[in-house]
Amino acid sequence: MLGQMQSQPLLISSLIAYAERWHGDGEIVSRRVEGDIHRYTYRDLARRARQLANALDAQGLQPGDRVASLAWNGYRHMEMYYGVAGSARVMHTINPRLHPDQIAWIVNHAEDQVLCFDMTFLPIVQAVHAKCPTVQKWVALCDADKLPADSGIPGLTSYDAWIAGASSDYRWPSFDENTASSLCYTSGTTGNPKGVLYSHRSTVLHAYAAALPDVMSLSARDAVLPVVPMFHVNAWGVPYSAALTGAKVVFPGPALDGKSVYELVEAEGVTFAAGVPTVWQMLLNHVKTNGLKFSTLRRTVIGGSACPPAMITAFQDEYDVSVLHAWGMTEMSPLGTVCTLKNKHLQLGRDEQMHILQKQGRAFFGVDLKIAGPDGRELPRDGKAFGDLMARGPWVVDRYFKGDSPLVTDENGLGWFPTGDVATIDADGYMHITDRSKDVIKSGGEWISSIDIENIAMAHPAVAMAACIGMPHPKWDERPIVVVARQPGAELTREELLAFYEGRTAKWQIPDDVVFVDAIPLGATGKMLKTRLREVLVGYKLPGL
Amino acid sequence: MLGQMQSQPLLISSLIAYAERWHGDGEIVSRRVEGDIHRYTYRDLARRARQLANALDAQGLQPGDRVASLAWNGYRHMEMYYGVAGSARVMHTINPRLHPDQIAWIVNHAEDQVLCFDMTFLPIVQAVHAKCPTVQKWVALCDADKLPADSGIPGLTSYDAWIAGASSDYRWPSFDENTASSLCYTSGTTGNPKGVLYSHRSTVLHAYAAALPDVMSLSARDAVLPVVPMFHVNAWGVPYSAALTGAKVVFPGPALDGKSVYELVEAEGVTFAAGVPTVWQMLLNHVKTNGLKFSTLRRTVIGGSACPPAMITAFQDEYDVSVLHAWGMTEMSPLGTVCTLKNKHLQLGRDEQMHILQKQGRAFFGVDLKIAGPDGRELPRDGKAFGDLMARGPWVVDRYFKGDSPLVTDENGLGWFPTGDVATIDADGYMHITDRSKDVIKSGGEWISSIDIENIAMAHPAVAMAACIGMPHPKWDERPIVVVARQPGAELTREELLAFYEGRTAKWQIPDDVVFVDAIPLGATGKMLKTRLREVLVGYKLPGL
Repeated sequence: MLGQMQSQPLLISSLIAYAERWHGDGEIVSRRVEGDIHRYTYRDLARRARQLANALDAQGLQPGDRVASLAWNGYRHMEMYYGVAGSARVMHTINPRLHPDQIAWIVNHAEDQVLCFDMTFLPIVQAVHAKCPTVQKWVALCDADKLPADSGIPGLTSYDAWIAGASSDYRWPSFDENTASSLCYTSGTTGNPKGVLYSHRSTVLHAYAAALPDVMSLSARDAVLPVVPMFHVNAWGVPYSAALTGAKVVFPGPALDGKSVYELVEAEGVTFAAGVPTVWQMLLNHVKTNGLKFSTLRRTVIGGSACPPAMITAFQDEYDVSVLHAWGMTEMSPLGTVCTLKNKHLQLGRDEQMHILQKQGRAFFGVDLKIAGPDGRELPRDGKAFGDLMARGPWVVDRYFKGDSPLVTDENGLGWFPTGDVATIDADGYMHITDRSKDVIKSGGEWISSIDIENIAMAHPAVAMAACIGMPHPKWDERPIVVVARQPGAELTREELLAFYEGRTAKWQIPDDVVFVDAIPLGATGKMLKTRLREVLVGYKLPGL
Repeated sequence: MLGQMQSQPLLISSLIAYAERWHGDGEIVSRRVEGDIHRYTYRDLARRARQLANALDAQGLQPGDRVASLAWNGYRHMEMYYGVAGSARVMHTINPRLHPDQIAWIVNHAEDQVLCFDMTFLPIVQAVHAKCPTVQKWVALCDADKLPADSGIPGLTSYDAWIAGASSDYRWPSFDENTASSLCYTSGTTGNPKGVLYSHRSTVLHAYAAALPDVMSLSARDAVLPVVPMFHVNAWGVPYSAALTGAKVVFPGPALDGKSVYELVEAEGVTFAAGVPTVWQMLLNHVKTNGLKFSTLRRTVIGGSACPPAMITAFQDEYDVSVLHAWGMTEMSPLGTVCTLKNKHLQLGRDEQMHILQKQGRAFFGVDLKIAGPDGRELPRDGKAFGDLMARGPWVVDRYFKGDSPLVTDENGLGWFPTGDVATIDADGYMHITDRSKDVIKSGGEWISSIDIENIAMAHPAVAMAACIGMPHPKWDERPIVVVARQPGAELTREELLAFYEGRTAKWQIPDDVVFVDAIPLGATGKMLKTRLREVLVGYKLPGL
């Protein structure tokens, strides 16, 4: 027997229709590529998203056709999120930090029909456009008068001129909520990138969950700053959850340095920000160096890679900003866990609370997680056993776009996505990533977490960034070394850092060596590129070998 | 083209499975009918819900069969919510405050197969059981040793003995998320009650939305006290949203007097409570009389009927408890609006904020509302125009159980549920109920809101409760009078109260008369029964007629 409630599909267009109707004058503030501040409302955004939908109709795009972006976080990018998916096309965000060859590969694999780009990325488009035969229209995300006279891109149009020609009269179509809405490729350090094809249903459910008090806790009283790029798993869903709650949105554009971010936070009364540790480190450095404070910022969600405990402490103790340590993946829309306390923890002392808050956190409703041993069996939730982290849920990938299913089937016939992370889960459900499976160091039959070793180094005031790598060893299989970039102007010797490890980890886990570099190479999403580091270290030998 | 995310239905069993796995030791505390406090965990609740599912299997109940309750808020009732719906049967909560004839009518209309009741309600069951031929099993929600020797109910079993015989091994089945999950009849002041048949999908989506920061803002740090009965639209969804977030749950059982509720709040560290104004008035009276304070209570959601502004002020100013004024209906699962501020209001003065917070609030994502004039056209959102309030959304009724669809189709072919309320909506989306359509007073071609007139009386310290009623008038069609129950021991004359209206409303809206009564009759859900009042007032004539 079926229930008798109204049947309404969960559609991305409902999010912007809601925001337009109930938060019409809610502000969307963007720092543009040109450097100036642009300011308008959800009402304006919805109107222009409808114009875009009409422009896509006029262009002859069919339902399911892909429209790509190479763009910073800004209002036009958000219009694309809604105008493209709302009209039943697929919004394909491309990471502009990838190599142009990889970008061309992705555009061809996705068969993008239209590609919209910020002028910053014109050189990329100039490099790839001839290799992208499926793209019938190139659009520069700028005003008509900002279009360069001779870009070299045939038929290049300015986005504003393009949609200006389209009516804002458009009724968002209704269709199956399982329809594809958006496409994002993993940054894949090995092999070709893999596309994850989100649906309207997965996106709307994720948007509900992401706004919960135990996740990002978003309300109409918030002003949210997604520093995490919109090309990086939909800025962790912030552009959707913001519309779902009517929160004010503040976009940083390309200016991610500490000074620019800080000024935006203060000028716009930002209450909540989301980003990766490297960006927050720049912000903290700026604030510290200049003796500044945050007057409105209350919460920041940090993910993308493990957040050093020292950063959590700095935000909370020195600036009264709560840090929400989070974990997710492109394949998970992306949020999987966020770290918040439970009722039973409220009576704990601060140190005990901090100990919990350094973990990646708990799954919230909609995500299930387990850790599995080599035989695929679930391991105990005791905070000690560690194994391969596996995930299930309505916003977790089932199959890659034009690719295989990565799922592993359990004894009950349920499919689990193997995340590639190695983790513990404790009795209260707090998950702690000990490593990426490919980075974990196998030493004498035991595992050493490269992240633990990095965090200790990061806690040293002279260290700007640290990467721990396993080096081949004839007796122990592998032994850890730590590659360190010093803080500007700071002095630190190999011996000082190794001494710093004493008492902070088991003796056998202390790295065998320290290698100083000018900078740790970062990947397209701000994560440390250990593969690149290994190339740099070719020929390196452990001391004593 | 479909997205490629995992396909998982939204099922009520997922909520309890989540709570068991991630908040296994989260507490469920209940004051029992016997008066003692019972205490266990989500893990225990999930285990016993599975035992109940097996007991229902053994009883031969098929998917879709109805299992009814006549019960207070407590752990066994919550086990039923999950065990019944989780095993694909329909959980039918019956309001025990209805007349036994009406209860028998409802049981027969629903064709309940099993009926579980608290011992408090044994007299009701004794009165109706012979008239309920579909019920094959009567179950008393008590321990085996609490079962009366001779209840007069053939085959009466104690719930605990019944499920004790069933295994706790049970795998929640997977099925279409649109399957019926639960059934609740409207209290229908006119005509027969109408059944609203919720689905798993509508319930889970409502549970997500209800936990949002702009709705009830529930997290794993909360201890929630649903004072609103579980037979009253699923206690506004609290038992579902609590499991979704892992919040501690505190059930008051039958003890809803101010002293009992206050003691429970303090003993269990309740942070959030939900209930109707009449219950909160008893609580406030107790706290005030005894010079008490709330040490953990931070938020209370008040709905069911309009919350007098004086109550909002008392909670906020005197006890530092935020009041969330809410509006909903049985047909809406029930939440439709909750009143919280927006980012733009944060800079307003306290009086201006209070002015907003007295309204019923804004729709949150998943609910759409409009006000319509007599011709069905949408009226402007200016805070002045008032009309029939209409609702749409995935947790809004489509059709009554074995009944008709109440929906009204608009010019775009969309179906809207006419709520029977008359309301304004302002430019910021804040909805304000001015009246029930049947209670609004038509005086000289103008409408007078009976609620406005009542709120003014309620603001007088000597008034315990006030009901405004329209009386026939030869010239003006209707004129308002106010029926008042004084505070115990307080003195108040007709002339004093009429003078109190001066300057608080337009002269022509001041009631023509005051009628004092010992008590205002309340309906089964705590709302004032104006129909009953009218019967009491038969023969009454307005002054001067």
